[in-house]
Amino acid sequence: MRTKPVEKIRIFALGGVGEIGKNMYVVELDDDIFVIDAGVMFPEDEMLGIDKVIPDISYLVERQDRIKAIFLTHGHEEHIGAIAYVLKKISVPVYGTKLTLGLAEAILKEQGITNAKLHEIRSNSEVLFDKAKVTFFRTIHSIPDSVGISIHTSQGAIVYTSDFKFDQTPYGKNRADLGKMAQIGEQGVLCLLSDSTNAERPGYTGSDTVVAQEIADVIYNAKGRVFIACYASNITRIQQVLHAAKTYGRKVAVVGKTLHKVMDIAVRLGYLHLPDKVTISIYDIDRYDDKELIILTTGGHGEPMSALARMAKQAHKQVNIKEGDTVIVAASVMPGYELGFAKTIDALYRAGADVIYRERKVHVSGHGCQEELKLMLNLMKPKYFIPVHGEYRMQKAHANLAKAVGISEDRTFLIDKGEVIEFRNGVARPGGKVPYGNILIDGLGIGDVGNIVLRDRRLLSQDGILIVVVTLSKDAKNIVAGPEIISRGFVYVRESETLLEEATKIVAAIINQCLQTYMMEWSSLKSNIREALGQFLFEKTKRKPMILPIIMEV
Amino acid sequence: MRTKPVEKIRIFALGGVGEIGKNMYVVELDDDIFVIDAGVMFPEDEMLGIDKVIPDISYLVERQDRIKAIFLTHGHEEHIGAIAYVLKKISVPVYGTKLTLGLAEAILKEQGITNAKLHEIRSNSEVLFDKAKVTFFRTIHSIPDSVGISIHTSQGAIVYTSDFKFDQTPYGKNRADLGKMAQIGEQGVLCLLSDSTNAERPGYTGSDTVVAQEIADVIYNAKGRVFIACYASNITRIQQVLHAAKTYGRKVAVVGKTLHKVMDIAVRLGYLHLPDKVTISIYDIDRYDDKELIILTTGGHGEPMSALARMAKQAHKQVNIKEGDTVIVAASVMPGYELGFAKTIDALYRAGADVIYRERKVHVSGHGCQEELKLMLNLMKPKYFIPVHGEYRMQKAHANLAKAVGISEDRTFLIDKGEVIEFRNGVARPGGKVPYGNILIDGLGIGDVGNIVLRDRRLLSQDGILIVVVTLSKDAKNIVAGPEIISRGFVYVRESETLLEEATKIVAAIINQCLQTYMMEWSSLKSNIREALGQFLFEKTKRKPMILPIIMEV
Repeated sequence: MRTKPVEKIRIFALGGVGEIGKNMYVVELDDDIFVIDAGVMFPEDEMLGIDKVIPDISYLVERQDRIKAIFLTHGHEEHIGAIAYVLKKISVPVYGTKLTLGLAEAILKEQGITNAKLHEIRSNSEVLFDKAKVTFFRTIHSIPDSVGISIHTSQGAIVYTSDFKFDQTPYGKNRADLGKMAQIGEQGVLCLLSDSTNAERPGYTGSDTVVAQEIADVIYNAKGRVFIACYASNITRIQQVLHAAKTYGRKVAVVGKTLHKVMDIAVRLGYLHLPDKVTISIYDIDRYDDKELIILTTGGHGEPMSALARMAKQAHKQVNIKEGDTVIVAASVMPGYELGFAKTIDALYRAGADVIYRERKVHVSGHGCQEELKLMLNLMKPKYFIPVHGEYRMQKAHANLAKAVGISEDRTFLIDKGEVIEFRNGVARPGGKVPYGNILIDGLGIGDVGNIVLRDRRLLSQDGILIVVVTLSKDAKNIVAGPEIISRGFVYVRESETLLEEATKIVAAIINQCLQTYMMEWSSLKSNIREALGQFLFEKTKRKPMILPIIMEV
Repeated sequence: MRTKPVEKIRIFALGGVGEIGKNMYVVELDDDIFVIDAGVMFPEDEMLGIDKVIPDISYLVERQDRIKAIFLTHGHEEHIGAIAYVLKKISVPVYGTKLTLGLAEAILKEQGITNAKLHEIRSNSEVLFDKAKVTFFRTIHSIPDSVGISIHTSQGAIVYTSDFKFDQTPYGKNRADLGKMAQIGEQGVLCLLSDSTNAERPGYTGSDTVVAQEIADVIYNAKGRVFIACYASNITRIQQVLHAAKTYGRKVAVVGKTLHKVMDIAVRLGYLHLPDKVTISIYDIDRYDDKELIILTTGGHGEPMSALARMAKQAHKQVNIKEGDTVIVAASVMPGYELGFAKTIDALYRAGADVIYRERKVHVSGHGCQEELKLMLNLMKPKYFIPVHGEYRMQKAHANLAKAVGISEDRTFLIDKGEVIEFRNGVARPGGKVPYGNILIDGLGIGDVGNIVLRDRRLLSQDGILIVVVTLSKDAKNIVAGPEIISRGFVYVRESETLLEEATKIVAAIINQCLQTYMMEWSSLKSNIREALGQFLFEKTKRKPMILPIIMEV
């Protein structure tokens, strides 16, 4: 190996462990920093009003001179979605395969970044740095051109599988680099970071070829139009649909901005083959018989359900579900979205559609189950193991699998975000913590919504707000106007007039009392109002609305 | 039959169809009204701040003289939880089995109702009315003393199965009245209303005896304390735990108010057998070795997860999870609570516990799967069929099962709430609609939160609120104080000072402009403020907070 020896290796995650999403892993070889992936996370329920979440990269910003490269492993938002935010703060070369860079470029363009240094790699590329040679291996995932990455150092290789499964009969030309993985394993893997998403599921993830047959079968048997909802990035699934359409003489109309965008990129870069005369505009569907039509769709963020929900409720601008339609939901439920998913299925049935989802294999996960994870562990034979890409229970389940194939517990590290594992002379031990965190994105604001704002939103969402306004004279001796109480999200005002009248009297009494007895700080007057009113309302209603006293002075 | 002939039968649901929860079915025999079940529903995500939901019973209130009886089929909240609200509005005899009435009485007591007319029935009881004889049949469900109900009329029997499964090896003494069901079927069922909860699931629901063995096995093998979280009403599960504790020489400490309440009632009425010297106080657990302890728990509403979550986070007042504990989650995930469930499992693992949930059969559903539903259909051989107790897709799946066993589609009615099916001379047809709805309960308020309040809470939860206060002189010519902008749940004020300063200037300009040009209605001034400020904020932040202008006059 032509690279210099490395004394100290440090590995940690800024995102992607203890959670699903915003993957970002950091490998430090002495002073050289390598970043792998830069993903977003879609917010959980309690993050009210938040659009997306990205990792806090202050650690990287402070050390940007030392960063040698960012590697992107595939084109999913959870792996590339934060790339624009990162490149706005640090200027560093980005490496990825053709499709991955194509999708990353679209994100950069939207955010107005045009000067990014993008380096296309192929699965047989070797990228040479001072202390490491970086190589790649093709994996099978739900988006083409996915790779794992191997950082070869003097202490051994650091391997990050990224998202993968082992489909032995994959659809299309994608094949996993099994031989190369075995070779990396034979050469000596110091530490493996592997995908824990399905570590709780026994067996194997089904094959995409079976899915293709199943989808074709549903299309063949459908008596009317066929709607197919899938993830915008699932180019394999889209190819399957286009192929089945061609076979059975149907036309495909594409609905959804994200879907159009991804398909354009995939076609331009050669990852999606459009059969002759198969796609039509959604505005032309009336020119065809129902039996000649397929409508391919995704909703906002490229997820499949939101557009379907509108179509089921007859609220979509372009096309709606009618009696006799067949709907294929080629997606699994995302954690936290189960109720919305079920409601959409209900709405589709109510609209008269035949809905194909769980019972038939019209979708499979892009992540390998237990047998596949064990196969990866056995191919790589790592000295140390860090299960990543998953909630804690998935990391834990993955650790159990590692134990089953012979990696002892003391060589497996169940890390949380920021926790460093340090390697010297090929021996690992915990290496302290680096700062990490969530940056919340709401509209255009990055990081201007934090815990206090979220706490307020949560409070507001539970029992609403009561605003108490009063105008006092400058000498603060008299009430000049008010007090007036305005409520939102608390009670029907019409039905609760007496309650609010009584509340107003209580507030007036408090204010007068305060004004008469002594000169009071406004802050104390406010807290007096808050306390008395809060107590009164809780007694009467057992609710605790936010109370906001506003004092004006004239 | 000694009952008078009935000309017109009407059947409809005020709750329980198109949803899981708040079961309430109505059978009208000419002028006589019979109500079956009076349940609550626990609110869905979008019902922000709501505690529970009950059916709107205005239809019944207006016709209360005609109501002959309310039948309660078993003691779950989804079937008896609204009984106090109903009896506050209408005074009518209530029929139920011993345990069901025991639990209903506890609810009535909490709500201060002491004069309810409760009639205990047994599974072999016959209740005679003018135009009907009502009989019951024992079913197996996750709470003892569950019955189905058969209303025998001159046109045939109306049968409501309520919640059931066919466990051929049930735990304890519960047995399903198979013979009686077959007999009812032989005598002629005009219409069957049956439980659709698991209509989408193939096969059979597992047996409670297998669960008992599995739980005993986990307890036997546990190296430290065993925590078991179950539904408070699942008396069968509780009995299994007490029995296993006795067998393996462990003590059981019970944690949770609802659990204590239900256990007290069940023991008093003879439905739960406490083995000698098995239960101990939670305050005495330090006197025992970890290997001698079982902690049995449920959280608020008697659901299993919330108490466990607190224990995992070391935030429970009485007992917390530590390294070496084994936790059995004897519960399935309720729809809409998947994320919270997963987070609790994570927290338990992080706290060092071994968690037993999905992989091992430590819980089974109380509702029968497809084979059991078909068995019920074949036993009852109804002329007409109404799938109830489920979301629309479950009703639909149940209708498909009915078709498979030979009940033609035109004899199956997929009803929504309020939709009436009318029977004359044994022939059914749609019979119009009756009013129905949701009454939302928030704290002490019943029905004072409706769509507007919920819409406000939703808006508030997304982007927060901006309050604009300004004091004008009486002649409305001048600004005397303000405008002042206060925000909650919108942005960090510290980080957004410039934004809010700019916003204040814009508002001041709008007000001055309005005041100078012409005498303006306050409502127009307010909408001008709302519009200008909303536009400015959306441009700057892509957010749409609620904007609330308040104008004071001095």
